[in-house]
Amino acid sequence: MTTSARQLVLNLFIHPTGHHEASWRHPSSAPDRIHSARYYQDLGRRAEAAKFDAVFFADVPHLGPNVEHGAAGWLEPITTLASIAAATERIGLIATASTTFYEPYNLARLFASLDHLSGGRAGWNIVTTASAGAAGNFGLTQFPEVEERYARATEFVETVTRLWDSWEDDAILLDVESGRYADPAKIHAADFAGEHVRVAGALNAPRSPQGYPVLVQAGASNEGRAFAARWSEAIFTAHQRLQDAQAFAADIRRQAVTFGRDPQGIKILPGISPFLGSTEAEARALETEFNELTVPAYGLRQLSVLTGVELGEDLLDKPVPPELFAAAGDVTDNNRSRLQVVAGIVEREQPTVRGLLHRLAGARGHRVVAGTPEQVADTITEWFTQGAADGFNVMPPALPTGIEVFADHVVPILQARGLFRTEYTGTTLRDHLGLPRPVNRYAAERAGADAASTPASGSADTPAATPVDALVRA
Amino acid sequence: MTTSARQLVLNLFIHPTGHHEASWRHPSSAPDRIHSARYYQDLGRRAEAAKFDAVFFADVPHLGPNVEHGAAGWLEPITTLASIAAATERIGLIATASTTFYEPYNLARLFASLDHLSGGRAGWNIVTTASAGAAGNFGLTQFPEVEERYARATEFVETVTRLWDSWEDDAILLDVESGRYADPAKIHAADFAGEHVRVAGALNAPRSPQGYPVLVQAGASNEGRAFAARWSEAIFTAHQRLQDAQAFAADIRRQAVTFGRDPQGIKILPGISPFLGSTEAEARALETEFNELTVPAYGLRQLSVLTGVELGEDLLDKPVPPELFAAAGDVTDNNRSRLQVVAGIVEREQPTVRGLLHRLAGARGHRVVAGTPEQVADTITEWFTQGAADGFNVMPPALPTGIEVFADHVVPILQARGLFRTEYTGTTLRDHLGLPRPVNRYAAERAGADAASTPASGSADTPAATPVDALVRA
Repeated sequence: MTTSARQLVLNLFIHPTGHHEASWRHPSSAPDRIHSARYYQDLGRRAEAAKFDAVFFADVPHLGPNVEHGAAGWLEPITTLASIAAATERIGLIATASTTFYEPYNLARLFASLDHLSGGRAGWNIVTTASAGAAGNFGLTQFPEVEERYARATEFVETVTRLWDSWEDDAILLDVESGRYADPAKIHAADFAGEHVRVAGALNAPRSPQGYPVLVQAGASNEGRAFAARWSEAIFTAHQRLQDAQAFAADIRRQAVTFGRDPQGIKILPGISPFLGSTEAEARALETEFNELTVPAYGLRQLSVLTGVELGEDLLDKPVPPELFAAAGDVTDNNRSRLQVVAGIVEREQPTVRGLLHRLAGARGHRVVAGTPEQVADTITEWFTQGAADGFNVMPPALPTGIEVFADHVVPILQARGLFRTEYTGTTLRDHLGLPRPVNRYAAERAGADAASTPASGSADTPAATPVDALVRA
Repeated sequence: MTTSARQLVLNLFIHPTGHHEASWRHPSSAPDRIHSARYYQDLGRRAEAAKFDAVFFADVPHLGPNVEHGAAGWLEPITTLASIAAATERIGLIATASTTFYEPYNLARLFASLDHLSGGRAGWNIVTTASAGAAGNFGLTQFPEVEERYARATEFVETVTRLWDSWEDDAILLDVESGRYADPAKIHAADFAGEHVRVAGALNAPRSPQGYPVLVQAGASNEGRAFAARWSEAIFTAHQRLQDAQAFAADIRRQAVTFGRDPQGIKILPGISPFLGSTEAEARALETEFNELTVPAYGLRQLSVLTGVELGEDLLDKPVPPELFAAAGDVTDNNRSRLQVVAGIVEREQPTVRGLLHRLAGARGHRVVAGTPEQVADTITEWFTQGAADGFNVMPPALPTGIEVFADHVVPILQARGLFRTEYTGTTLRDHLGLPRPVNRYAAERAGADAASTPASGSADTPAATPVDALVRA
């Protein structure tokens, strides 16, 4: 195996019973374990044994209406990752958290602590939460529009990175003899006063092992893409086809250049949900087995959340009506990008309503593949080598079995091809992803480095907040 | 040993290097380990081996100005407890968190997850944060007054307990055959619209093992006492003298009765910081050794935060000037109660300024005792049997050594006296404390129980939010 060649990134995206909506009904899942620490620790250990880069959790601070037929309800991701951290040594730990519904000081602390507790393995998947239902859980009568959400997100990330820089790396002196614990000149107030976010003081924790937890992003709206191009070090994205993924990657890298960033410094990670069998027919039969466990009422409700259109069960075996996508203009922008993916499926495959529900049951619009380990490794290899992906968020249809089968049968093929590590070479998530550790902005200023190369958007007398990689000069 | 007799509660209050402000300079602490998971896991395991009820973390979302000479900066408590949970089996896990600076939906999730991840060992120490510096970290230009903070806290706790009740205990059906995962009739929106707090939906996690994490409270202001009498199941409090602790306990129990509660259902836990030696002289010498490591500039600054009065180092060997407590009216109410403790020390002991700094260096106004294990066990026994305490938050001057010495030498004496368990008899923190599991309010209504005995203070069409023990009918 060559270690110098470009390497795949593989994350295990953990959805409690697996990503297929009916997985909780299938014997290969363990729905009675999904609220226990041991279950998630076992998944983390399994992914670590397979040398995955990270485990990944989605999140939305809201319980949707579809509770009767789906495995609704889940643990809070950051605390769950702190638990997984205690049971593992190397694997990265990425949690989704919302800039719209968190206070930046609280969120900065939670992720800094996770990074300390894990020895530098934390990642934050930054979302603005395109879910109107969440607003009511936070005292908002109106759901903020996408532009406003991203305006807040921008200030939020600037503030949080300032907080993570509060303590320079050498701020702690630990001079027992003189009684000086820390150097106050190396601890800095955030002093950020924006339109949406204001934070006065310094973080109450020292700088964490990675400097900043890895910044991940998952919004595919136009605003989301621009935000990702500016801030993110990894992007979780949804594409059905190679050419769409290639176009997305090209767009992100082009925009990254306009922010003065290295276009290869962003890891683009589509979702992939693999049904595996010893023959292709066996894999397809497994997919069918899962799809036949779906409850149409559940799928129709999910579809109506996405499209704004309610379809009756009497239409299940009819072609998908074109008006399903007429309401695209009325839904949030992020939904619109997901709607485009779904509209593309309908246009290409002309399914019945039931057929469409089955297509979406697998991974909510992410790519589902059914095949032999060799076939799945081939499609991963193709996307990786053809500019469509730097790696994948692997979304097993059912857990815990899905990660076991993938680890035992697909990973060895990718390793044999020299595309994926056989051992970890570093200890932090940044090490795994090949991302540099951000230089502390205040230390950079003191060193006379020209790190602060973009205009400050905080208050006037504070140092400029800059894109992450403009700070990375170590 | 009798297990039916009333039993002491013992919590280990974890302050990173220990509770004495100079502990980080003493060889019995480990200041280089205080940002690692392993350190806190080791402390948790040590306290569990000694059969303690819980570990306890303080918190304030703010870095104070005293960073140069004290071990400033610490990990976020809830994530740290999730890490300790993974390394332990039985010990309770109590984190302090602020009702003023958290969103109730986020906080309800974090504690519910901690309770799930730990198998029912979570506790929430409810504070309103009497620290003006914190306000600026949350976009507030003015620090809310104590009355307003407690008005929000009351709505906050009502909302959070509603969220913890969102899912009835039997809401999950897991009916694989029919495809029904949960019964929507047993999942309830919080639907709370108060003056300070509004939460519309249901929690996105099932009810946790304890129903509610144990509700702890630590505010000693008049508002804090009334709040504690209404809501709390355990109180962390600071007293120097037996009679003051007795008066406090009597006041809390009297007020609890006015809320219709069992006055013995509240565990009153003063702080105690023990210096232990094989002779009393050795213990006192150890205390002196710690005090001589203090940096006067640090102590004077802490004193000025408390009193609003700046004293110069030239006054260190002069008597404490009476004007030190003149400003008591200008500080927040919670500080006032702590000021009374300090004023009492000065009145009784007539110390020099340096002497007062040494008295406060041990545990910030909590009771410091120096003596043999027998003497410390005697004072614990006296307070426990004389109506001053149901147990203690043990605040070792230095960690990790302080818990080792206490566990090895004091705990066996208390066990031999039949006052403290030699084995855990239950698995949850509620089990350890002898507290009942709260009945779900919606299940109680359905059962026709008269659980909702106080008027609703939420919106009119939702069930009444009631004090915890009015719901406890199991």
